[in-house]
Amino acid sequence: MKTLIDLNADAGESFGRWRLGDDERLLPLVSSVNVACGWHAGDPATMRRSVELARASGTALGAHPGLADLAGFGRRSMALSPADAADACLYQYGALRGFADALGVPVVHVKPHGAFYGLTMRDPAITGAIAEACASVSPELIVVLLAGEPATQAEAAGARVAREAFADLDYDDDGHIIIEPRPAAKDPAACAGRVMSILDGYVTTVSGKRVEVDADTVCLHGDRPNAVDIAAAIRERLDDAGVRVAPIAEVLAVRS
Amino acid sequence: MKTLIDLNADAGESFGRWRLGDDERLLPLVSSVNVACGWHAGDPATMRRSVELARASGTALGAHPGLADLAGFGRRSMALSPADAADACLYQYGALRGFADALGVPVVHVKPHGAFYGLTMRDPAITGAIAEACASVSPELIVVLLAGEPATQAEAAGARVAREAFADLDYDDDGHIIIEPRPAAKDPAACAGRVMSILDGYVTTVSGKRVEVDADTVCLHGDRPNAVDIAAAIRERLDDAGVRVAPIAEVLAVRS
Amino acid sequence: MKTLIDLNADAGESFGRWRLGDDERLLPLVSSVNVACGWHAGDPATMRRSVELARASGTALGAHPGLADLAGFGRRSMALSPADAADACLYQYGALRGFADALGVPVVHVKPHGAFYGLTMRDPAITGAIAEACASVSPELIVVLLAGEPATQAEAAGARVAREAFADLDYDDDGHIIIEPRPAAKDPAACAGRVMSILDGYVTTVSGKRVEVDADTVCLHGDRPNAVDIAAAIRERLDDAGVRVAPIAEVLAVRS
Amino acid sequence: MKTLIDLNADAGESFGRWRLGDDERLLPLVSSVNVACGWHAGDPATMRRSVELARASGTALGAHPGLADLAGFGRRSMALSPADAADACLYQYGALRGFADALGVPVVHVKPHGAFYGLTMRDPAITGAIAEACASVSPELIVVLLAGEPATQAEAAGARVAREAFADLDYDDDGHIIIEPRPAAKDPAACAGRVMSILDGYVTTVSGKRVEVDADTVCLHGDRPNAVDIAAAIRERLDDAGVRVAPIAEVLAVRS
Repeated sequence: MKTLIDLNADAGESFGRWRLGDDERLLPLVSSVNVACGWHAGDPATMRRSVELARASGTALGAHPGLADLAGFGRRSMALSPADAADACLYQYGALRGFADALGVPVVHVKPHGAFYGLTMRDPAITGAIAEACASVSPELIVVLLAGEPATQAEAAGARVAREAFADLDYDDDGHIIIEPRPAAKDPAACAGRVMSILDGYVTTVSGKRVEVDADTVCLHGDRPNAVDIAAAIRERLDDAGVRVAPIAEVLAVRS
Repeated sequence: MKTLIDLNADAGESFGRWRLGDDERLLPLVSSVNVACGWHAGDPATMRRSVELARASGTALGAHPGLADLAGFGRRSMALSPADAADACLYQYGALRGFADALGVPVVHVKPHGAFYGLTMRDPAITGAIAEACASVSPELIVVLLAGEPATQAEAAGARVAREAFADLDYDDDGHIIIEPRPAAKDPAACAGRVMSILDGYVTTVSGKRVEVDADTVCLHGDRPNAVDIAAAIRERLDDAGVRVAPIAEVLAVRS
Repeated sequence: MKTLIDLNADAGESFGRWRLGDDERLLPLVSSVNVACGWHAGDPATMRRSVELARASGTALGAHPGLADLAGFGRRSMALSPADAADACLYQYGALRGFADALGVPVVHVKPHGAFYGLTMRDPAITGAIAEACASVSPELIVVLLAGEPATQAEAAGARVAREAFADLDYDDDGHIIIEPRPAAKDPAACAGRVMSILDGYVTTVSGKRVEVDADTVCLHGDRPNAVDIAAAIRERLDDAGVRVAPIAEVLAVRS
Repeated sequence: MKTLIDLNADAGESFGRWRLGDDERLLPLVSSVNVACGWHAGDPATMRRSVELARASGTALGAHPGLADLAGFGRRSMALSPADAADACLYQYGALRGFADALGVPVVHVKPHGAFYGLTMRDPAITGAIAEACASVSPELIVVLLAGEPATQAEAAGARVAREAFADLDYDDDGHIIIEPRPAAKDPAACAGRVMSILDGYVTTVSGKRVEVDADTVCLHGDRPNAVDIAAAIRERLDDAGVRVAPIAEVLAVRS
């Protein structure tokens, strides 16, 4: 069993008048945070606040670029060209950098959101373009992608990659996650159980099959109504098992 | 008469299917370019191309943040709070940084666009917030504002400032520029003449009054139909007068 | 004391993933509803649901056009031309008509939202343009504006007008409402008390002054956290006083 | 050979500061116009002007709803649900109705744009939802879809349908059109020749195969640089052949 893992959460998903997620309580429970950058969620004031929260809680900061679809929260797929995908990453990563630089916080990783993440599971050209875009910014910048083919493809394209698994999403028998348009509450104990299986190197799919997974980081979604409870349950389970939770960069340093 | 000046142009103002300006021919004629960052113009693909053009022509690259108003091209005023103004700058500056970092080009300056620039002529709290935001990113980052009160206020707020005058806009008797919603063609010789008066330390207002101006950089608008002709006329006139055109950073280095 | 009044609420202010307001419980408590039309809030799916709710509760349906500012929820002022203002009304009114026609519900009134409403308090040319735009659609279409100069100006421009007062906003000594960017909870009894004073022909301003007001309809905001409690308190108070609550068209029919 | 046909053009595709197409010269050459409604092109001022132009030239007015993708001009596919597709049609149709009602012009038809049109070629559930949405507004409202399966499916779903063929797009061997992201100039004579073949009941595909087509209306794209020349060449060819050009409603009346 792995004894070191990063726990990452999607957050910063409010927009203007609309609030979503309890980031104040969630961020201290995870080691990395993926902050929405304005295209699917996250207006500038929310982004600033997210960077401030990450700094206050010592959570490693990452960009969470999405498709340009506020009404669909970036969860409706869109036919991007590889160039579009690269540009979407650079634009949104950069936008977060603006706040991060102003507040003195490094942007450590980039992780596509929702249907944009979905594209990387189906289209290696998209994955390659994203990987090259991130590598062109800096060889240190980490791209977070699904453990398996997407992560392997991004590594081959020259990027520094973290392989991801999901605490709160179901998997199909291809080892792909099933993205929910509007995440409902999930049983915290079941999510914590899935994290333990991931540390043991597998996930159980919806049909009951075991699929191998080798992950550096485990994700949970900040817009799930009981996200904080899920995070707390995972942390407790990991503490009990003597597993250390640390930011991605530290996990990757140990792995290599 | 000054013998060194920066010539800056607003460019990168296409958006998706729509083309505006002849940046390929304009950029080699100026020493600095202000690139639209997606809120009033400039989709990601256009931003990438703008950075490539700036690199190819050796033009110093700056961000040109605007109000979030594509339909109005950022030329309709909007009641931003100082915090909104700071965040609008950081977001758009950062977005351009994404492409600039990927392509290895530094972002040297930030200049608000259109009605956002207009806010800095009327609201010192906005000006101060923009100046502080830029200074928090880096003490090297230059803020370009109207020569006169806005530039003085930004300097007082701790930013590195370039004082700007306009080759192709009229001035009122308060020394304020008159922003046109949709710039028409202008007489290139008259614009070149205005640049010469600026080097002599004044502009002539619409009522014929002389107003003193002390400028580091002179602007022309890339969306004016004959922008390239205006730029060429200015360059010829400056060459004839033995005035050197150089990027803002060089002008500021000499000034200080 | 008036014995007949319309009670209207701003609603339909969710957007995609984000929920705001408890429209299911609020709409049955009011006689008219102003539905956000996509520019400041209200994506298409929310608009459809709003029309369905209005139909189910028998609440008279109106369009609530806002400024094109999702991040600011339409509560930041913007320098529209009168033509812009007319076009913003027609576009958003029409968009709601699409759903209303499909569901067989008439769109009875138009009421500008937030800072757009604020423009009608300061700029008679805007008010006139809105009034003419609505009158050009149909002489039956009702424009809802602040009781006082805006309503009078719109009537002079040829529109059918309902004069509005506010249950849950403070007034300044000019009789203008004070728009809150992010409405907080308010004391339901105080709001109900204000409605009673409006029926008596006045409001008390923040400085304690009495200002006359002659209103056909009284507004409350659906995005106030306790909007449902406020509406319920008002309804109870009106019932106790024997005041009948009826849609605007009925109130105007009696007035004339 | 058919002796009566509608000629329709996509137009109103400017946006704010950006101009696209020469609608003033194009509209008098066609019998129907499909006006962009703000999601992929066409800001409110442009929509108003389009309706005025249609009225002035006696061209039948239709809505041209697109995907919500200004940066991609609605030519990048997006995974809409059938409900999303219906709502996108109703919103945009309605928005155009606002201007049409104000100017006294009927909105006769609805035709999805670009990748939205592409969805109707691949997903019968989308086609059915669009057809039902339009039929729910009015049994008179005409839906324009590709002659073949999409048109047949929409008719089965209860809508009044016009079957469309394309003067300026290539066809693949399935009889599907090949959508160009950025239409280039095309030979006017070739386009006119294709119209003549359509009147004879077929189109020739890119591989040289003949595919049967039974069309009520033929489309050309207003954003093609030489759209006006193409339209003029088609009109001349049709005049020479004694084919009458008339709005869709007239063509459908004769067909039935």
